[in-house]
Order: sequence, then structure tokens, then C-alpha cells
Amino acid sequence: MSNKPLNPKGTRDFNPITLQRRRYIIDVISSTFKSFGYNEIETPSIERRLTLYHKYGNEGDNFIFNILNSGEKIKKANLKAFNDKNYNDFISSISEKGLRFDLTVPLARYVSQHQNEISFPFKRFQIQNVWRADRPQKGRYQEFTQCDADVIGSDSLLLEFEMIQLYSSVFKKLELKDVVIKINHRQVLNAIAKKIGVKDNFNEFFTSLDKIDKVGSEKTMDELKSKFNNADEIDKLFDIINKNPNHEEYLKFIKNYLSDYDSKLLDELETFINMIDKNKKLINIDFDLSLARGLEYYTGMIYEVSLKSDLNIGSLGGGGRYEYLTESFNLKNNSGIGISFGLDRIFHVINDKELFPKNISLNNEILVINFGKEYIYKILDLLDEIRGLGKKVFIYPDNIKLSKQFSFANNNNFKEVLIFGESENQENFIKIRNMESGDEENFNLKDFTKKYH
Amino acid sequence: MSNKPLNPKGTRDFNPITLQRRRYIIDVISSTFKSFGYNEIETPSIERRLTLYHKYGNEGDNFIFNILNSGEKIKKANLKAFNDKNYNDFISSISEKGLRFDLTVPLARYVSQHQNEISFPFKRFQIQNVWRADRPQKGRYQEFTQCDADVIGSDSLLLEFEMIQLYSSVFKKLELKDVVIKINHRQVLNAIAKKIGVKDNFNEFFTSLDKIDKVGSEKTMDELKSKFNNADEIDKLFDIINKNPNHEEYLKFIKNYLSDYDSKLLDELETFINMIDKNKKLINIDFDLSLARGLEYYTGMIYEVSLKSDLNIGSLGGGGRYEYLTESFNLKNNSGIGISFGLDRIFHVINDKELFPKNISLNNEILVINFGKEYIYKILDLLDEIRGLGKKVFIYPDNIKLSKQFSFANNNNFKEVLIFGESENQENFIKIRNMESGDEENFNLKDFTKKYH
Repeated sequence: MSNKPLNPKGTRDFNPITLQRRRYIIDVISSTFKSFGYNEIETPSIERRLTLYHKYGNEGDNFIFNILNSGEKIKKANLKAFNDKNYNDFISSISEKGLRFDLTVPLARYVSQHQNEISFPFKRFQIQNVWRADRPQKGRYQEFTQCDADVIGSDSLLLEFEMIQLYSSVFKKLELKDVVIKINHRQVLNAIAKKIGVKDNFNEFFTSLDKIDKVGSEKTMDELKSKFNNADEIDKLFDIINKNPNHEEYLKFIKNYLSDYDSKLLDELETFINMIDKNKKLINIDFDLSLARGLEYYTGMIYEVSLKSDLNIGSLGGGGRYEYLTESFNLKNNSGIGISFGLDRIFHVINDKELFPKNISLNNEILVINFGKEYIYKILDLLDEIRGLGKKVFIYPDNIKLSKQFSFANNNNFKEVLIFGESENQENFIKIRNMESGDEENFNLKDFTKKYH
Repeated sequence: MSNKPLNPKGTRDFNPITLQRRRYIIDVISSTFKSFGYNEIETPSIERRLTLYHKYGNEGDNFIFNILNSGEKIKKANLKAFNDKNYNDFISSISEKGLRFDLTVPLARYVSQHQNEISFPFKRFQIQNVWRADRPQKGRYQEFTQCDADVIGSDSLLLEFEMIQLYSSVFKKLELKDVVIKINHRQVLNAIAKKIGVKDNFNEFFTSLDKIDKVGSEKTMDELKSKFNNADEIDKLFDIINKNPNHEEYLKFIKNYLSDYDSKLLDELETFINMIDKNKKLINIDFDLSLARGLEYYTGMIYEVSLKSDLNIGSLGGGGRYEYLTESFNLKNNSGIGISFGLDRIFHVINDKELFPKNISLNNEILVINFGKEYIYKILDLLDEIRGLGKKVFIYPDNIKLSKQFSFANNNNFKEVLIFGESENQENFIKIRNMESGDEENFNLKDFTKKYH
């Protein structure tokens, strides 16, 4: 039984240096979340299909990975459904669980399930993998990591602002000055949709609008015109979209174009825009009337972060307010808001721009050359002692040619090599060679550990 | 669409304090691995079924979670196989991938796939979840975390010893003095099996032997006698097993009982026992002739860690040497050895014994009382500044009754409460209340951040 070693398409192995660099980004994000008082939770990778489905829209549901029931349960496969081409029922008959698709729906499930142990407002963050059965392509994976912060149980506008602060703080620490937060509001979109004459198929409207970045403004406009048959209003909408309005123009458009807006909404937007315009610590913020975000659960402000200089890279993060998500788990009156950082895309951008700190390194500090077990035994306790002092000590396991052991030290960038062989043993000292300078220094066995104090 | 919020059976949500405690254990384990020069990797949660199957024995294979092919591929379901009750073929027709079952087989796959980027001996550690479709029960989960360290590319006995050092170092740091490492050797077991007359079904013999802890010595003996029909030799074997031999007696048994042992094996065991008997920093070590370990891939020394005072808790970790595992991925002559820590069981033991450090706490440091948005705006920059100094600042998002905000601070053990309302604003100071002592102190706005320098 032999086979070619391959990880599945759309997944990745992370080697030690890549993993350390991912950890650097994760540390920046999680320490920022912590500095705003968010606490971390984890939920299972596996959720019931009941929990996952009908939360992400039809397109989303198609990308959920289903897990086959195990053992005897497989015998319950509904072949009739299969023969009737009713594949959903067929799948339901052999699968009760699926892989986590995002971190927001599991959060809503968590909050509803544990509501009696939680004091609201609940600020939580979560950094875990999610899985999507999307066709793998460059920069798009079937397993990837999301880093989410959410607040459940308050509709305060301060939180809409805090999301901007979180994004700004993280991207500044990562020295990514080139990012922009695009903002829009679902209620604004709803009012636009009504004005254009959309009746029930709001999601269809949003989904079309959301494709501007992919298919271009021209095509999107044509699609909308053919679907909703109101060229005048659609032209007006695209005038402002193409103009890339500044904050003031965005507000003005809402006031003039929308008869149907709610004055509370406008007040909120005005206050919000005032707040961000006054604050000098924030990164670029654009209001973008074409931003819709695919996920069904958003009801208020929505965010998306992208790279100004390269929109093709896709979104580096996104989020928004969702008022009713916990209701699908029987918990009412619990407005939530949150944002996500897409670790994998952020990684690629930082990597391309060579912005990783130079001091990210492996655990290759001290290599102990192997002159035979008897010599190793003799200094085992000393090695243990310097490990206790925080040093990383790799004993070369085999007594092979010295030249080979030294090239191992070189190839793996060990900082020091520890030499204790026959002559050192006779004279009771340990020799340390600094691999960068080539300098060697001898230490009496008794004093050796002092070097590392 | 509403449904009861529930995580799937056999899985768990981790709330913030539980997660912090898990992280404490993970930090002890990973810092120990690092101090021996191991570097971390990660592999995907999803592996090809080709990679996973036929590595863990038949019993293992049954517990692999299969992932349903997505999209159009579901139409290829092999109904004939289903009707013929050939469920394996049926599953193969609708599933190409499964969830990671352990971290060792993915490591073998990784090493074979990336052999040209790795310099051997390769010391890697990996802390990730694994999934098993085992019936959920107390302390047994379908998703759990393993923490593995392995060395690939050397058969040096120093590594057999290093595994013991790793276990000892971790459990000492965790203050778990009550654990014991049980050790045995697959070649010893093979020789015993031959002597008893086992021919092809070595694995059946090992699996039976391995059940002693579960079903007791009496029953296991009867089972073996009925299967292998050699009561004399089996009696002799159980004499020594029941005696719980010390290190010397274990060696002596091998010398006397086994005609068929290889002298190199005996030399190795003798050297090894010498090493551990001389070293005073190790935890309890028992040689146990009944230890077999279920997984098929072990070929040399095997380890299992358990709690002396409560064997029912099951294994806290295990491992061993596997000489041929990478061969199933076409990479020859690459002996490996490794051990695993079972995070979840270790957590339960530490929790039961109340050994978690008292200083593990949430990110609830400073709660800013909300007297209205206008007051918050005024100090936003100051709050940002102290966040930059490492403080964790939670702004209460809603302007609700003070008493409610203060009980929120109390219930969540905030250390300080920051008060900045009408009178503080007029007099230009910020009031800080220490929540433990109740003391309050005023700081001029200009000097405020100095408090946290």
C-alpha cells in the first residue's frame, strides 16, 4: 500500500517559518482585540447541519462541507431521493453535520445556547479555521483562518466606530498603510432597492450589486437594468457609485435621492461620519454605495477592507451589524456587530510587500555536536539547566562525521554550536562556537551555565 | 426558521476562562518542545482518504470521519455498491477526503511530500485538533487536541531517551507528580507472540493484550488462551505482567523467557534502562509487558502515560518509534519516533486537582463607564493611548443606569472602573476606582496616561 504524498487541493501545509509568520499576524490581531477588552472563545469545527444551513444564502449553502454519518447510519441513505434527483434530501439522509463555514453563525449559536452564563454586552473574539467547498484557485482556499471580533447585546453606535478602530489599529501595527475600509449600510441599500422597484428579491439585488468589483460597473448596471427595468433610477445610482463619493457626498446622496430613508438612520450616519472625520488615527475610509456583502444576516452598517493598490487580491476582511441572527436560535432582542480579518490574504499582502519583521526566526539556537553518547550523557544535566534558562538546545542525535553536523548547523542557521568531545572532556571544558562570527570560547564545566544567566 | 441551539454531541464550546486554561497547558507543552529545538508545523484538517486509510488498523479506519464530495460529484454515488451492502465502495464513490485522525500520519505524508525542503533529522512539533467518530462518552470527544513532537530521520537511542525527558519536563512544570510513563517494546512483544505461537495475526494479539486496563487481566488471559491455545506460555507471561516488574526484572524476563530476542535489542534496552535509572530528573517509569498500543505503525519502543491514582481516566499521552511509516508515502530509510500529549485529558486532571495557576484571568481590566457619547468622545484618544501601553480598556457601549454598569464591572471582575461624566468633565479630571479596594483616585486629564507608564 503505497501512494503519492499530497495534501488535498485547496488546502496547505505550513512549514515552520510560514507558521511563525502567520503567528506574528495573529498576535497583532489578538493583542488588539484584547486591548479593547474582548475575550476569546472557541467553538467546534463541526456543527449540526440545522445550525449551518439557511444562514448564508443559497449560494453559501452550496459551499458548506457535509460530513458523512459514520457506522451503521450510512445504511439509511435515501436512494429514492437520489433517484428523484432530490440531492438535498439524499445528503440529509447520510449527513447530519457539516464543517464550520464562518465564525459568526457559530457565535450566534453559542450565545443563544449559553445565554445564562454570559453577561451582556458580550465582547468575544475567535481565531479559528473555516471551510468552504469553493473551487480552489490562487489565493482562495477550502480551509482558511478567520479572526473575528464581535459584540453581542448592544446597538450602540460606539461599536460601529470601535470596528473602525480595530481595523485601523491592526493594519497600522502591521504597517499596511495601503488598505481602505469601504463602508455602506444595508438600510440605505434597502431604500435604494425599493426606489428602483425591487420587491421580494432584495438578496438578488444585493448579490448583483456586489459583483461590481468582479465584473465591472458597466456589466453590473446592464444586469440590474434587465432584471429590474428601471433605467432612470439605476443610472442615478451608478452616477454616484462611479463618482466614488466623499463622506459628505454620500450623505447628500442619501438625503436627496432617497425619499424613503428613515431620519434616525440619517442622524446615525451623520454622527458616525463626524466621529471618523474628527479622528486622525484611522486608516482610509470610503463610503461605497455598491458594497452589499453576500451574507444574508447583515441588517445595518457593513464593512469591507481591501488593498487600494490591488483590488484583485480580494477582501482582507469584512463585517457589519446583524440585528436578528440570534433569533434563528430563539434568542431575541440581541443586536450584534462584528468584523473579521482574513488571515490568509493579509499574509500574502505582507509577504509580497516584504513587511514581516526580520527577527522572526526558528527555534534553532544551540546545536550540540554528537561525539558519541558517552559525551552527551556527561553534559545532559547542564543542557537541561540552560533549557530551564530559556535556551533552545538541539542535540544532534547521531554520531556522524563532524563536517556533516556542522553543515546541518549552517543550513539551519543555528546561532551557536556546542562542542564537547574527547579533548574537551579531558580538560573539563565546553567549547562554544558562534556560528556567525566563527569565534570560539571555552567554558569550564562548572561555570558553563553562567554564560546563559 | 428557528431551532434549538446545540453543538453536536462529542464536541465542545470553550468559554473564555476554559480556553485560557487550555492555553496555559499548551504554552507549557510548546515551550518545552521549543527548548529541545523542535519547530512547529501545521497540516490541513482535511486529508485525502488515500492518505488516511490503512494506517490505523481496521478498528481505526472505522472511526475516520469522511467528508462528502460537494457539488455535482454527489451524482456519482455508486448505488449498486450500496445495494450490494458494499458500504466501503459506496462511501468511496461520494467521499474523497476525511478529517485528520492523528498528527503522525499527516507528518509522514508531510515529510515525504516536502523531503527536498527539509534537512534531516527533522524535529517538528504540531498542536492541532483531530477527529474520531468514536461513540461520545464522558471524557471522550469526537474532536480533541493533540500535541505531538516527533523526530524523523534518525534511529539514535538518544531520542528514545529524549521522549522521556519531554514527558518528564512537561508534567513537572504542570505539577502533575502523579503520572507514570509505561514503556514496552514492539520487538519484545513480537518475540513473545512468536513464542506463544501467534502466526499472522500479530495485531489481533496486540489488540487483545492492550485491553487489560479495560477488561482486566483475568479476562484477557482467558481470551488469549482460547485464541492461541498455549496456556503454559500465556501463564508465564501473565505471571510477569501481574508482578508489575521493576526495570531489572523486565530485562531479566526478556533474557530468560525469550529465546528469540535479538542481542542488539537487549543491548539497547540495557543502555536505555541505565540512562533512565541514573537520571534523577525523570518522572515515574514502569516497564509494562502488557502495553501494546493499538496503532499499527509502531515498530520499536512504545510509551503510554497515565495517572497512577486513577487509571480510569485513560491515557494522557502516548507514542513510540515507527520505522516504516514514511515508506507508505514512498520515502524509505527514515525511522521516526514521537510522542503525543492529550490536551483534553490533561486538562481534566489539572482541573480536578485544582492545579491551574491562580493568575489565569480574562481581559477584563478597565471598564469605562458610559455617561453619554459626548464624554466618551472627549477621552477616546487617551483611552487609545493607554491601550498602546498594554492596558485593556472596555468602553461600556450603552448609556444605561450607573448601578447596572457597576454590577457589570463587578460580575466580570474588572480591576478598575474609569469615571468621566459631567462633574469630572467640568473639573478636567478622570476618576479611577479600584474595584477590589474601593479606593478612588482623580487624575488630571493631562497627567492621566502617566498612571499607566
